Amino acid sequence: MEPSAEEFMREAVALARANVKAGGRPFGALLVRDGRVIARAVNEVNQTKDPTAHAELLAIRRASQSLGSASLSGCIIYASGHPCPMCLAAMHLCGIQGAYFAYTNEEGEAFGLSTAPIYAQLARGPQAQSIALRPLRPSDEHGLYEEWKRQQG
Amino acid sequence: MEPSAEEFMREAVALARANVKAGGRPFGALLVRDGRVIARAVNEVNQTKDPTAHAELLAIRRASQSLGSASLSGCIIYASGHPCPMCLAAMHLCGIQGAYFAYTNEEGEAFGLSTAPIYAQLARGPQAQSIALRPLRPSDEHGLYEEWKRQQG
Repeated sequence: MEPSAEEFMREAVALARANVKAGGRPFGALLVRDGRVIARAVNEVNQTKDPTAHAELLAIRRASQSLGSASLSGCIIYASGHPCPMCLAAMHLCGIQGAYFAYTNEEGEAFGLSTAPIYAQLARGPQAQSIALRPLRPSDEHGLYEEWKRQQG
Repeated sequence: MEPSAEEFMREAVALARANVKAGGRPFGALLVRDGRVIARAVNEVNQTKDPTAHAELLAIRRASQSLGSASLSGCIIYASGHPCPMCLAAMHLCGIQGAYFAYTNEEGEAFGLSTAPIYAQLARGPQAQSIALRPLRPSDEHGLYEEWKRQQG
């Protein structure tokens, strides 16, 4: 009998709790396909100084390596905390089917762990962020995507 | 004399073009601080099957390793194509100051290279995505973030 959704989530939270004991941030994630765990990860930002080393992103990276595919369609993520927009966008990129989380952004807010402010930025659209995002096209530059298409053909 | 913004962008596009010749996707990025390149990257999704291996995300990861810090405040990214929401959210997470891009999402659309549809998803807010994102709290689970705070203390 395959584990229930609640059992998967208990393991994701246990990973987060073990990471706290090891000096890491309180986040863990499991990536599951067909009722089987294909990747586990914890937040490694403190340990590695890599700002993208969130549990969900690392689980996606590990699962893609394990399956040998950049597509993870049909997979489910169990995350101890509400996924941030970087991780949610990554889930869109690889076709994740759904994600569950145990702790909300509201619960994280008092601890500086909510990513709601970044969601608010993303909701403003790419050209209306607090980060300036601007076009800059070198003169005489053209045809990059056409060259890629020809290479594909 | 430090290179101009246009010169940095020419190098980002040259990286993208070299990646196309090597069988990769048409994206390259430079990460610059104080007028000096501290990381270069190309899209490695085809080569590695890692769906998160976008040029900007890899440049952020490399720069953080090079500087030994998860904060990249004051850094500028030069990307050959419009950054996707995963990479833009990552820029928020690490404090990137600004980003320039040479090719727009509109130009990418005919080639399947626009990430505008994922921006549209993110703009709908975390609980209104095509990916189901749902709370699931195991019974008797509580206090994870408080435990992290105590550990910090």
